[in-house]
Amino acid sequence: MVPAAQMKQAMQAYLDAFNCNDLEALVALYADDATVEDPVGSKPKRGRDEIRAFYAMALKNGAKLALAAPIRGSQGDAAAMAFDVTLASPHGRAVIHVIDVMTFDAQGHFTSMKAYWSQSDMERLPAAT
Amino acid sequence: MVPAAQMKQAMQAYLDAFNCNDLEALVALYADDATVEDPVGSKPKRGRDEIRAFYAMALKNGAKLALAAPIRGSQGDAAAMAFDVTLASPHGRAVIHVIDVMTFDAQGHFTSMKAYWSQSDMERLPAAT
Repeated sequence: MVPAAQMKQAMQAYLDAFNCNDLEALVALYADDATVEDPVGSKPKRGRDEIRAFYAMALKNGAKLALAAPIRGSQGDAAAMAFDVTLASPHGRAVIHVIDVMTFDAQGHFTSMKAYWSQSDMERLPAAT
Repeated sequence: MVPAAQMKQAMQAYLDAFNCNDLEALVALYADDATVEDPVGSKPKRGRDEIRAFYAMALKNGAKLALAAPIRGSQGDAAAMAFDVTLASPHGRAVIHVIDVMTFDAQGHFTSMKAYWSQSDMERLPAAT
């Protein structure tokens, strides 16, 4: 089983890779046949190619992630984190409140990611001055 | 499918019932054959009797819950929230940083609860003065 500290470190590496626009570092955190369900209730992406395409789009939109509370571990192969996504939408800047749950393989790679958010978790931000 | 607003309302009702020591209101939020895995990685409790016994113990310990960030919905039958649990431990007051994920049936009852936290998410608090 992966120690909670190692799972949290991988979650933090995910935030950092995302915010540094490092697509390959992001993809490398995933196991080969991992799934990404973002948001929960949508069709999951499966495997590194689909996952790479998904994040390439997210990074192109200039999204940035900021933790809303400390990353949580578990006593199993899973960890969770609450964060805010800031991005440019067609209607101006917006923030989405998200919780991600990752599961892990023995090597500490993500085997699945589920992102909990709905339209009601998105807010428009006042225009930057 | 249960609207995100209704799922969030049920999550808030859970926090309120917990903080008001209302054991029966807490149990009534669950479907008959629901499961509670707290923390994730431990053996799940199943059904209202086991769930009632679990919360009776938690309430006896004087635990209180406070949201750390807004409750998140999803586009499926699931929602998630990050919160802090304050409680009295044998070594004094402590706080545990937790994320709960609930799934819902068509009536808006919880069919499962998973609580993400590990020993590393617990902190001792200074003694109240």
